[in-house]
Amino acid sequence: MPLVRIDLSAHRPPAVRRAVADGVHQALVEVIGIPDGDRFQIVTPHDPDELIFDPNYLGVDRQDVVYVQITLVQGRPRELKLDLYRRIAELLAEAGVRPEDVVITLVENALDNWSVGNGIAQLVELGAVAGTGSAG
Amino acid sequence: MPLVRIDLSAHRPPAVRRAVADGVHQALVEVIGIPDGDRFQIVTPHDPDELIFDPNYLGVDRQDVVYVQITLVQGRPRELKLDLYRRIAELLAEAGVRPEDVVITLVENALDNWSVGNGIAQLVELGAVAGTGSAG
Amino acid sequence: MPLVRIDLSAHRPPAVRRAVADGVHQALVEVIGIPDGDRFQIVTPHDPDELIFDPNYLGVDRQDVVYVQITLVQGRPRELKLDLYRRIAELLAEAGVRPEDVVITLVENALDNWSVGNGIAQLVELGAVAGTGSAG
Repeated sequence: MPLVRIDLSAHRPPAVRRAVADGVHQALVEVIGIPDGDRFQIVTPHDPDELIFDPNYLGVDRQDVVYVQITLVQGRPRELKLDLYRRIAELLAEAGVRPEDVVITLVENALDNWSVGNGIAQLVELGAVAGTGSAG
Repeated sequence: MPLVRIDLSAHRPPAVRRAVADGVHQALVEVIGIPDGDRFQIVTPHDPDELIFDPNYLGVDRQDVVYVQITLVQGRPRELKLDLYRRIAELLAEAGVRPEDVVITLVENALDNWSVGNGIAQLVELGAVAGTGSAG
Repeated sequence: MPLVRIDLSAHRPPAVRRAVADGVHQALVEVIGIPDGDRFQIVTPHDPDELIFDPNYLGVDRQDVVYVQITLVQGRPRELKLDLYRRIAELLAEAGVRPEDVVITLVENALDNWSVGNGIAQLVELGAVAGTGSAG
């Protein structure tokens, strides 16, 4: 149950915003193996002066950053994370976002830190999530 | 010192938004035992297309999700977390939110990760927070 | 690569919002030792009723809170964190924010939880970040 926060420029039209959200989700499904229905995303459009970034830190030529912050259950191995970043950048390029402008942060938490409705901790009942090597 | 982020549809009127914030806070006070004054909340209304969710993942019939993300000090036992989710859903139902539409995520951090004003780390001075089993 | 989220009242004019963002960044550079180019910030202005806080919890006289949430790589020692809070409050005072109104939360994550462009995990390649005592 990742929770995905996407913060991007309001000048990107709604169809592009949706394509960005779709791309992030598709990458999570393909790389991490989350179910297609496991989709929870918050998109926040911003005026340009609300998104601040350095235009060339670590040699990356940034012009109009799309911030993607993903809260997800801990335990995905490093190679899956690296594959995830690469795949998000690829799919967002198809949505019209330059790969240089894709900034991604993960925040990892525990299985009992989630309720996806009805006041129930569904993940505790499931006992595991995709991509963590736990039995499921 | 939980920090609570609530992201919900802008079509929910201000009185409902406030009742949602009140309900989340009341649940934290009742279940976790935080002081009533320990209230820090950020509410962000969204256009409908900015809140993306699956309408039936894990069999929950979602129509208009209210996202609740709570950053709080680590160490609350699982049973308190489960009670918290149930109580939030109950109190938000009183505010007019369907329990199916309440999606909650916790992010846990450390005692020295907080300053609630004046540039001071008040929790370090207190030495503990409610509900963690630490001496206080 | 801290990611900084700043949520504050929309009535604070754009120049003040920018000065707040500048102050938080300067404190991170001075205290934690991050490179000046390592700047990634999301500013979200809010209507007054969207920022909820207690006006005197723990004896701090709050009137118009500026929320600062910083996601950063784990491992900074406590004394650096305490210095960071103090310095942020000092610099935001210069920007016109009362120190009582500065509420700060840190969320710590791992070195492989970051991509700052091009779908690459730059921190993994660097092997360390400033202020954590790791070799770099």
